[in-house]
Amino acid sequence: MPGDMKSAPIGVFDSGLGGLTVAREIMRNLPRERIVYFGDTARVPYGNKSKPTIVRYSRQIVRFLMQQEIKAIVIACNTATALAIDEVKEEAGIPVIGVVEPGAVTAAAVTKNKQVGVIATRATTSTNAYARAIHAIDPSINVISEACPLLVPLAEEGWLHDRITDEIIMRYLDDLLEHDIDTLILGCTHYPLFRSEIRKLIGDKITLVNPAYETAKGLERMLAACNLENEAPLNPDEPYPYRFFVSDEAERFTEFASSILPVDVKKARIIPIEEY
Amino acid sequence: MPGDMKSAPIGVFDSGLGGLTVAREIMRNLPRERIVYFGDTARVPYGNKSKPTIVRYSRQIVRFLMQQEIKAIVIACNTATALAIDEVKEEAGIPVIGVVEPGAVTAAAVTKNKQVGVIATRATTSTNAYARAIHAIDPSINVISEACPLLVPLAEEGWLHDRITDEIIMRYLDDLLEHDIDTLILGCTHYPLFRSEIRKLIGDKITLVNPAYETAKGLERMLAACNLENEAPLNPDEPYPYRFFVSDEAERFTEFASSILPVDVKKARIIPIEEY
Repeated sequence: MPGDMKSAPIGVFDSGLGGLTVAREIMRNLPRERIVYFGDTARVPYGNKSKPTIVRYSRQIVRFLMQQEIKAIVIACNTATALAIDEVKEEAGIPVIGVVEPGAVTAAAVTKNKQVGVIATRATTSTNAYARAIHAIDPSINVISEACPLLVPLAEEGWLHDRITDEIIMRYLDDLLEHDIDTLILGCTHYPLFRSEIRKLIGDKITLVNPAYETAKGLERMLAACNLENEAPLNPDEPYPYRFFVSDEAERFTEFASSILPVDVKKARIIPIEEY
Repeated sequence: MPGDMKSAPIGVFDSGLGGLTVAREIMRNLPRERIVYFGDTARVPYGNKSKPTIVRYSRQIVRFLMQQEIKAIVIACNTATALAIDEVKEEAGIPVIGVVEPGAVTAAAVTKNKQVGVIATRATTSTNAYARAIHAIDPSINVISEACPLLVPLAEEGWLHDRITDEIIMRYLDDLLEHDIDTLILGCTHYPLFRSEIRKLIGDKITLVNPAYETAKGLERMLAACNLENEAPLNPDEPYPYRFFVSDEAERFTEFASSILPVDVKKARIIPIEEY
């Protein structure tokens, strides 16, 4: 592997803004790595679309990212991971990691009573991706999934700490709590924004698994295994170690990105992704 | 105008399912008219996308609809009406009606105290389309808008009659009620599904304006003015007076369509709309 391949950026993509929680964990945990992020804001959300459509959209994004000379791909979107990871691997031909497996591995490792809950969008729960990934590790674990379609709109409405939000979360969690889960996977990239609220509501006996964090750690292991870790620290004067591309609404993107990332995002370039 | 032009169908389009409430009112109020409906389910929703993107998507849909030999177009989507009606007219070259103006005309006619409320998606309120349309009729009317981004997800979650939904609606309406509105426009095609709930919460002193119904009546006037009304009643044995096309998820579409339309929708064909 040539030396300059190690210094190449990681390609990270999502249907829109949610994947920024994954980019944030990569910045925190892999501070030597460059990132090229693509958010498909012209076609967001993916959660209510079919597999052929998600595969087509993902392939277009991979073709764009490959032109940026990336060394690995992170699918920072539960739906695209669940429906298109095999096709992304085939299209890319470089190492690819999605958000589902790392969270599943951690949940399987930490559960003691083998009752694991998953909250996610309807698209993710209907693919059963987390249950399949956990059962591949330990088929005796009971995985209980709950679709929480209102949580993304509540996050985007900014009602993060709100009595109504608490009530909605509790209604969604009721069934999971009756199953006496000891581990709960936040299976949608927006849900880490509710982490402190969920923690408050369910107490401290249940382990919360954040796939964004687990994916960053999984990426670290993958880069090490492939001998692709960047060896030199980023130069603080490097103008664009993190570059951002979207398919629409660049301004709203940079605002949201600046509010949740540890860096100030000054610009995002709009890409005509349908043409890729 | 040749006779067979009068029997041609009306083209109706929306970003997805919401426009079916408009198609429903056309079926009820203009029972002689044929309909070709297109729902852009691969790129839904439009509410969070930019004007250039909505214009591009709308032009593609118009090009597809024109191939179906339609005689007029109904833009059954508040966002596409607000952002792209001029471009749709230019692209189509046949009579076009959107959902904003008919509701605005009725609201301006029925308000007595000149305080009109509008609830809609954030995209629609941010364009100020209803206020502009009402002020074009009577600049002295005070238009107070409130974005209600949670109502579409609540409708799609099926929480139509629910204590939490009531609380959320009341939070959204609070400010409008303080302005002592006597007229309220349901400025999103999904909101008629909450009509009885809203009526229960606000009492019977406020007139509710349903743009879906007003658009059907506006279409009737437009067809009459253009001498385009179909003269013959539809033959009950005609196999497909209503045809449905989508860009994704045809099965979910036919289920929802059958549940709200007065006819059974057996199939919807998937169109590769990006290629138009």
